[in-house]
Amino acid sequence: MHILVVACLASIITIEVCSGARMTTITTTTTMPPPSSPTPLTMAYSPELPTVPPQVCTEATSTISPLGRLRSAMRDISYVQKNVLDAFIIFYTDEHLSEEPSADERRLEYFSGWDGPGTAVVLADGEAAVWVPAGDVRRARAVLSCAWNVLDADNPSQTSVAEWIIKYAPRNARIGADSRLTSINQWQMLLGSLQREGMSLLAMSTLLDQLWNEELDPEKRRPEVNRVVAKLHNSSYTGMTWRQKVDLVRNELRLIGVDAMVVTALDEVAWLLNIRGRDLPYAPLLKAFVVVSVRELRVYAPAGKLSMPVREALAVYNCFPNSNNCTRVKDYSDIYADLRKATESKILIPTEGTFQRGASAAIAQIIPLAKRLFQPSPILYFKAQKNQAEVMGMHKAHLRDAVAMCTVLSYLEVVGKSGLNELTVATKVDITRGTQAGYVSQSMQTRVAFGPSGAEPEYKATAATSRRIFPNSTIVIQSGGQYYEGTTAVTRTLHYGSPTREERRAYTTVLRSLCALATLQTPSTLPAAHTDPVARAPLWAARQDYAPPTGYGMGAALNRKEDPVVIDYRQDINLHTFREGYFITSEPAWYEAGKFGAKLGNVLEVLPRAGGYLGFREATLIPYEYKLIDRNLLTEYEIKWLNEYNERIRKTVGPELKDQGLTDVYYWMMNKTVPIESPRAKKNNPNSAPSYTCRLEIIIVLAAFALSYY
Amino acid sequence: MHILVVACLASIITIEVCSGARMTTITTTTTMPPPSSPTPLTMAYSPELPTVPPQVCTEATSTISPLGRLRSAMRDISYVQKNVLDAFIIFYTDEHLSEEPSADERRLEYFSGWDGPGTAVVLADGEAAVWVPAGDVRRARAVLSCAWNVLDADNPSQTSVAEWIIKYAPRNARIGADSRLTSINQWQMLLGSLQREGMSLLAMSTLLDQLWNEELDPEKRRPEVNRVVAKLHNSSYTGMTWRQKVDLVRNELRLIGVDAMVVTALDEVAWLLNIRGRDLPYAPLLKAFVVVSVRELRVYAPAGKLSMPVREALAVYNCFPNSNNCTRVKDYSDIYADLRKATESKILIPTEGTFQRGASAAIAQIIPLAKRLFQPSPILYFKAQKNQAEVMGMHKAHLRDAVAMCTVLSYLEVVGKSGLNELTVATKVDITRGTQAGYVSQSMQTRVAFGPSGAEPEYKATAATSRRIFPNSTIVIQSGGQYYEGTTAVTRTLHYGSPTREERRAYTTVLRSLCALATLQTPSTLPAAHTDPVARAPLWAARQDYAPPTGYGMGAALNRKEDPVVIDYRQDINLHTFREGYFITSEPAWYEAGKFGAKLGNVLEVLPRAGGYLGFREATLIPYEYKLIDRNLLTEYEIKWLNEYNERIRKTVGPELKDQGLTDVYYWMMNKTVPIESPRAKKNNPNSAPSYTCRLEIIIVLAAFALSYY
Repeated sequence: MHILVVACLASIITIEVCSGARMTTITTTTTMPPPSSPTPLTMAYSPELPTVPPQVCTEATSTISPLGRLRSAMRDISYVQKNVLDAFIIFYTDEHLSEEPSADERRLEYFSGWDGPGTAVVLADGEAAVWVPAGDVRRARAVLSCAWNVLDADNPSQTSVAEWIIKYAPRNARIGADSRLTSINQWQMLLGSLQREGMSLLAMSTLLDQLWNEELDPEKRRPEVNRVVAKLHNSSYTGMTWRQKVDLVRNELRLIGVDAMVVTALDEVAWLLNIRGRDLPYAPLLKAFVVVSVRELRVYAPAGKLSMPVREALAVYNCFPNSNNCTRVKDYSDIYADLRKATESKILIPTEGTFQRGASAAIAQIIPLAKRLFQPSPILYFKAQKNQAEVMGMHKAHLRDAVAMCTVLSYLEVVGKSGLNELTVATKVDITRGTQAGYVSQSMQTRVAFGPSGAEPEYKATAATSRRIFPNSTIVIQSGGQYYEGTTAVTRTLHYGSPTREERRAYTTVLRSLCALATLQTPSTLPAAHTDPVARAPLWAARQDYAPPTGYGMGAALNRKEDPVVIDYRQDINLHTFREGYFITSEPAWYEAGKFGAKLGNVLEVLPRAGGYLGFREATLIPYEYKLIDRNLLTEYEIKWLNEYNERIRKTVGPELKDQGLTDVYYWMMNKTVPIESPRAKKNNPNSAPSYTCRLEIIIVLAAFALSYY
Repeated sequence: MHILVVACLASIITIEVCSGARMTTITTTTTMPPPSSPTPLTMAYSPELPTVPPQVCTEATSTISPLGRLRSAMRDISYVQKNVLDAFIIFYTDEHLSEEPSADERRLEYFSGWDGPGTAVVLADGEAAVWVPAGDVRRARAVLSCAWNVLDADNPSQTSVAEWIIKYAPRNARIGADSRLTSINQWQMLLGSLQREGMSLLAMSTLLDQLWNEELDPEKRRPEVNRVVAKLHNSSYTGMTWRQKVDLVRNELRLIGVDAMVVTALDEVAWLLNIRGRDLPYAPLLKAFVVVSVRELRVYAPAGKLSMPVREALAVYNCFPNSNNCTRVKDYSDIYADLRKATESKILIPTEGTFQRGASAAIAQIIPLAKRLFQPSPILYFKAQKNQAEVMGMHKAHLRDAVAMCTVLSYLEVVGKSGLNELTVATKVDITRGTQAGYVSQSMQTRVAFGPSGAEPEYKATAATSRRIFPNSTIVIQSGGQYYEGTTAVTRTLHYGSPTREERRAYTTVLRSLCALATLQTPSTLPAAHTDPVARAPLWAARQDYAPPTGYGMGAALNRKEDPVVIDYRQDINLHTFREGYFITSEPAWYEAGKFGAKLGNVLEVLPRAGGYLGFREATLIPYEYKLIDRNLLTEYEIKWLNEYNERIRKTVGPELKDQGLTDVYYWMMNKTVPIESPRAKKNNPNSAPSYTCRLEIIIVLAAFALSYY
């Protein structure tokens, strides 16, 4: 009897082992290291926003503030001659309508204090207002002085710029604005609205610059123009000579039936001439205009901004009359006078796309009316379709970026407990990326958002708002790099404690969205915008949506956002299809307002598939965060995709980490890319462990009995 | 020792049971009955198409054929007076531009022999040609005599009707056509093209009818006009009185700024007046026109086609001068004369939508030019959005339809081995549906397609092509019913043998497409057409696509296809969003050319979801075919969706089957709706069956030993 009891106990114990073994097929957390440092529970997190600094209300009446000086100048004939003004419109951008102008072009910031995109209107007597994107309204209200009304530029029910002027400016008002800094479309719309009310819109290109140049306060003084010269972009990255590119463009111009085009977008200038500059904060571009005619190539660049090798490569010194095999370099500001008296008979003026804003009103209007042809720039399509050299460069840049991001993410995970804040994390990201070979600059302002900050799509931490990082919420890190070889951008969401069920659900759903687009195979005729419902479906199923587009085109060592494709279901104009060689981003997000954000962003390469289909493959090779993945929400297809992605990271980034001697980072990466076992794979295998365990336990029982029997 | 050996054998046997039990978590086929009749391997399937009947080439020169008589009449002044013609265009449809005209309106079929949609042109001297949809070209070539050239109407590279006439008709040709039978758009396009070449297009509305009426051959003679009178549509199905509906329309007309509209679409007439007729083959409609003015309601219906209750309900006898609270009934053909001299000052003329073809050229042109306003019919949107009574009716109709389909599918499964062919199956489907209470007619021609036939989207079996059903391929059955309460349509794919891996993959992928749309939750602003990539993504992943739209709107006891929504990614005009109360179809398909087809079609109800989202729920409640489902290709989400669907069939259709005494069918349905166990559900449950089995087997072993011990 004694033996029988022991045998019974043994059988129960082995059964526990049996069911335990079965459990491991659905959770592989046992193969991962425990969280590096358990969080002390006493470390509470304060949910209040940092207090807003007291508003400087004296600005509205100050005569020495930029605003006050502008108001005086508008009535001062020594500034405006006979054109005394009732209002002035201040635009945000530069003469190329760049998305992120350089510091010396930030007139809006100088006059209003608003550092983001927007449009301001200053009345000589009365109010001043600034229109900012919907996502920036809150921050603008916090940042701007009481001299400024803040309006939502994206809300059609709010007063528009023209409506506001019509409402507040006097009858027959005269309104000034710098027509070099806005698109011809915008200008014409403003002009039409104002003229209908008997007002006049005057193009004044010197007033703002003059006032800024006269600023005495050293803190506000206009920054010096960047003196860094433009360099040649290595032919191993470009894959084509500038001559080949100019020939492509000339062919297209002939097909269109024009004999010249103005190239105003800076990324088009850089692409066309195979040069890279340092004039913009987040893109390696040179501020220059180009006119491509069927006979000539004219470059308008500030004196001294083209390095000697560039001049040589562009055959600047080979120009003789009627030569079309050289580049004529002229001064930057000569573009206007030259266009006015251009000998060409029909000139293509680029129109607005999605990111590409086309030519400015000043450029368009200086060209004689009969010579104008408005059309999207043909360069836009050439540039989007990367050639083999560019594709290789993008891969190389993404490999470097993966090393940098793995390094910083593994470092942050270790020090996560010790008093980081959003800005310190951002700085760490920037510094780490900067150590990579070929690094040029950030491709965007690095944005780190903890907890509730992560739920704001447009959140940018400032010293005043930067939240301390605690282990009780998610951290969203958005960043990107410009490398000689290519451009990168990546978004990852982290968590330094034990994520809640809700946070894991959000993160996993965003991961599923990422998978839905990455694994989509689409007929090549489907507009990019119409793939968006596929990407968003997993989030929609949880009734989550996000305001920004899911993705957009990306340049190769050019702009982080480029035309023509935008993945946004709300897009109903400018519909373009994907093409082989395009690079795009995919950036789904779950914004849980007031609580946390979960966002993931990858760069995808568009690849051909059999049967005329197109598919995607991640260029970004940076691990996801396991602890935020709820595997029970993933399908077999998604697990397979995730495992293949992790395998690619191991195979591609692993050797590079080892080469760079980053052993700790290598093991961190290996831990973050452990394959998730598929629950079904095991089931289909009749020889799986549980069966063996069952047999084993019965053999033990039998053996025990046999022993007791003899 | 003897006992030990027995115990060892017992343990091995029980282990087999144990692993067998575990196996059931991935396959539930063990719970289903075995195939009712294993197929004899000798029953080979012949892949050749049935031979085409010999072409009747005498028709081209015959003078007594309809074609010959038309040619003679075109030059015969007793038929055409002074308008001697060089060519005649024959349209397919009726004066309401119905998709499926009645037998007495099938002029195209009488003159050409082509029974499908198309357009024919007959030259007085020379050729004759017919343009048919792309999917019909093959069949048209097989069916039509050598007198006819067959052209693809959907292929823009093929000669169009106008181009063909310009090419083959003499200079300054005079072309006749019946302007009552084509849309104003089509007419204007033809007119423009022909006039540019100096040709003239003459509206002749009597010639074709006169020739057909004079036909002596009893087989070709024009069918009598259907004498069945229109009846009232029960108010429990309509949910609104005709007065309420007319008020809705009148409000809309005032908003649009017109004082009348012509209602030409038959489903709009039936919806507006709450009546149903039997004039069309696949929809319960009355051939009538309605003019709704802000003062009057005029119905133009053939004499004697309105039953006495209809006349009373429509308050026909309450009309006194200036009354707007009654219905004035006039003769059908009076519409033209009345519109010419209408007292209204601005009349809305419905324009073309997707299925809705708008007003005919004759209707539009009879209205004085200054009074015409072309716009989509406002009734289209009212009609699409079903009210509570209509929704209930649709559910009731789908319940009846589920009983009919379960009955016929279970019957066919049993007799599947015994010499069925495509047409006998179709007949059986029609007869079975006809036994249901409230049945009115088919909602479409029942289409059964076996093997390679199933790979042709537009395949319609004829006596000549009807394939015998064998157990070695799939059978696609598309059918639908009109019931008093609502309209149904369903597609199911069956297999009477052992499906191949390829067939199961195709079917399962189609099922996944069905799931993708059915479980989608979409922002209410997303156009229906843009949900199509979500539906097609699983098929695209296998690089499969299908030419027809994924789905379209469906009427409630009206047309099987109705505007405004079409789920088709290629749709880029007429983009409309879903609204609560819309019913739509979802009909993904995998066409494996030359081999087999797999198609599934359901009707979905559009339902509101939290947060302004819209979702879908199947109105169709008819089981899928387990043996064609490869569970390994389904995700957890899809299995959950499938199980919930099956559970709804059991709960909803089960009691109805019992009530109707269809016990055999009930058990068939229960067998077809056995839940698929989720591989993961089991894993998470430590007390799952295999553990019990393991314990049980050990207890047996222990007991055996205990017995042997004592």
